[in-house]
Amino acid sequence: MKFGIVFFPTVGGADGEATPTQYYDDGLHIAELADELGYFQVKLVEHYFFDYGGYSPDPTTFLAAVAARTSRLRIATGAVIPAFTHAVKLSGQLAMLDNISGGRLDVGFGRAFLPEEFAAFGIPLDESRARFEEGVEACVRLWTEDNLKWNGTFHQFGPVTMLPKPAQQPHPPVFVASTGNLDSCRTAGEQGRHLQLIASAATREKVQEALSIYRRARADAGHASGTERIDLTFPCFVDEDRAAAYLQGEYVERKMSEKMASAVSAWTTVKSDQYPGYDQMAAAAVRNGAAFDERVTENQVLAGTPDDVRGQLGEIAEWYGDDIAVGLSVHSGHLPRADVERGLRLFAERIAPAFAGGR
Amino acid sequence: MKFGIVFFPTVGGADGEATPTQYYDDGLHIAELADELGYFQVKLVEHYFFDYGGYSPDPTTFLAAVAARTSRLRIATGAVIPAFTHAVKLSGQLAMLDNISGGRLDVGFGRAFLPEEFAAFGIPLDESRARFEEGVEACVRLWTEDNLKWNGTFHQFGPVTMLPKPAQQPHPPVFVASTGNLDSCRTAGEQGRHLQLIASAATREKVQEALSIYRRARADAGHASGTERIDLTFPCFVDEDRAAAYLQGEYVERKMSEKMASAVSAWTTVKSDQYPGYDQMAAAAVRNGAAFDERVTENQVLAGTPDDVRGQLGEIAEWYGDDIAVGLSVHSGHLPRADVERGLRLFAERIAPAFAGGR
Repeated sequence: MKFGIVFFPTVGGADGEATPTQYYDDGLHIAELADELGYFQVKLVEHYFFDYGGYSPDPTTFLAAVAARTSRLRIATGAVIPAFTHAVKLSGQLAMLDNISGGRLDVGFGRAFLPEEFAAFGIPLDESRARFEEGVEACVRLWTEDNLKWNGTFHQFGPVTMLPKPAQQPHPPVFVASTGNLDSCRTAGEQGRHLQLIASAATREKVQEALSIYRRARADAGHASGTERIDLTFPCFVDEDRAAAYLQGEYVERKMSEKMASAVSAWTTVKSDQYPGYDQMAAAAVRNGAAFDERVTENQVLAGTPDDVRGQLGEIAEWYGDDIAVGLSVHSGHLPRADVERGLRLFAERIAPAFAGGR
Repeated sequence: MKFGIVFFPTVGGADGEATPTQYYDDGLHIAELADELGYFQVKLVEHYFFDYGGYSPDPTTFLAAVAARTSRLRIATGAVIPAFTHAVKLSGQLAMLDNISGGRLDVGFGRAFLPEEFAAFGIPLDESRARFEEGVEACVRLWTEDNLKWNGTFHQFGPVTMLPKPAQQPHPPVFVASTGNLDSCRTAGEQGRHLQLIASAATREKVQEALSIYRRARADAGHASGTERIDLTFPCFVDEDRAAAYLQGEYVERKMSEKMASAVSAWTTVKSDQYPGYDQMAAAAVRNGAAFDERVTENQVLAGTPDDVRGQLGEIAEWYGDDIAVGLSVHSGHLPRADVERGLRLFAERIAPAFAGGR
């Protein structure tokens, strides 16, 4: 297994929370340390308006700063949202980042799911899947073709030749970001995309089902076995002292659940058959915030001593395969940087070496 | 006078030209040197598809990398185009950059003028001024207001509270980028915006008229005198050996004129009363490329020995005021980095000190 780090801000600057300047500055230092310690990747989300992710309306901007300060880490969007940015802009911006990082970019694309974000961009929720599919395809073709004439449902342009072309040829690895929607996983497999799965709120059975559908669809469509990449993200809190790790984790996860519940509250009044079950999301977020110990037991959250977390990862490797990359969500903005860095050092020294090819 | 540096790529990677990876890597090194030498600012353009500017479809992405590698330079867009990026995305992205740079951002906004760019984004050329005005206003209000309800001509959204807020309060300095259109200069003055003027193709009289209209409109509208900032950009080639400086300059300016002529060639068939005179642009670009010595004589291009260029800048200070910031366009991608760096050192040691407050 390989281990990366994931940044997901859940602060908004009120009540003594980290300001944006502090959040990014801490993030750059954490990324530099991760680069030095041999972590595999750093990943950042795209969200707007809410403390839940809202410090990152444009992950590419922050990731370019990370690229300039690191030399080995892969640089990942997790995810960017084609529905909210024109493919000409998005493909160009990502190609710049791929070149600035010397070909270290992994691109995760997502559909997005917060009703207020769609409303602000004037995009109907029900178009989200179609816009996602069209946007990803347009980016890939802008990266790889000259004189591209694009006749999509939502955008028409060309012939144009996009500049710059990406550093990685024919283009950076493309991931579909999913919270476990089975249709999304199947389509991602059929199209030969890689997969980013946010598993921290799903049961073992749900994750296994999603991965199995993804892998089978990929094989059935004739994509070479062993070339797929699967990223799973877990919140991670490691300390020599188990009680200290749990205290950190409980605090951060409770904050995360509060901020998420607030961000998804629109789903209690909005309905879209494109988003089955999303009306339960706020309630689930609140439940998760109060069920920390249970989530650790079910390996949805990594927490404890190095021995504890090594044990959890052993089970995760058994459950989901030892060829996955594990993303450690460590930078919410709620913990002092020193705590995050101590945890990353412990993980690198005492946990990662136990997993073959780890890092 | 203050001195900044300006990046305007005019390479596309063909025929041995710099690849994007090389262009950005050189740019980061040049920016680090400029930071060390006490230059004031680094600025980057937004363009698509053509060798003329096309390595920079999203200046914010590259500037975030520059911000991460520097500590004193101000970080300037010159310009970003609100017509091509939704204000929610653009304001968020720029606010991230302001925070990542620790409050060093200067935002130049532009209307854009290449017909193919408008066509690709599906935006009518004739809407460019209205979209520019609406986009700038929306960004400023997203930066400064909570629960903003926006009812524009082109976009409606809200109430939303944009995150993150900029580091600079109430918001980063806002510049209008202009090639000298008198209406644009007047409006920029009335609204109390700062001004970025691309003077390298305009006569002394034209520049003086534009600045005078801008300054008068600003005063008439009651904006405090002495608070305006005016940036003028000039290509710059300095060498101990005058002939070497001229050789560099002639080569780069000829390439620039060829690439520009190609990018603006659509204006020979496109008409818009919003862009008076643009049908002559390709011919003017070709003429400029062949008139290097004349452009040096008229102080449209800075070139020669340190003494020569110091003399030119003395005249420029007399003509346009000694309170302007001069942007030295030094990174086209056509010169070896060592040449650019030698020129920047010479300028910093032998030219800048002659201008009070200069550095």
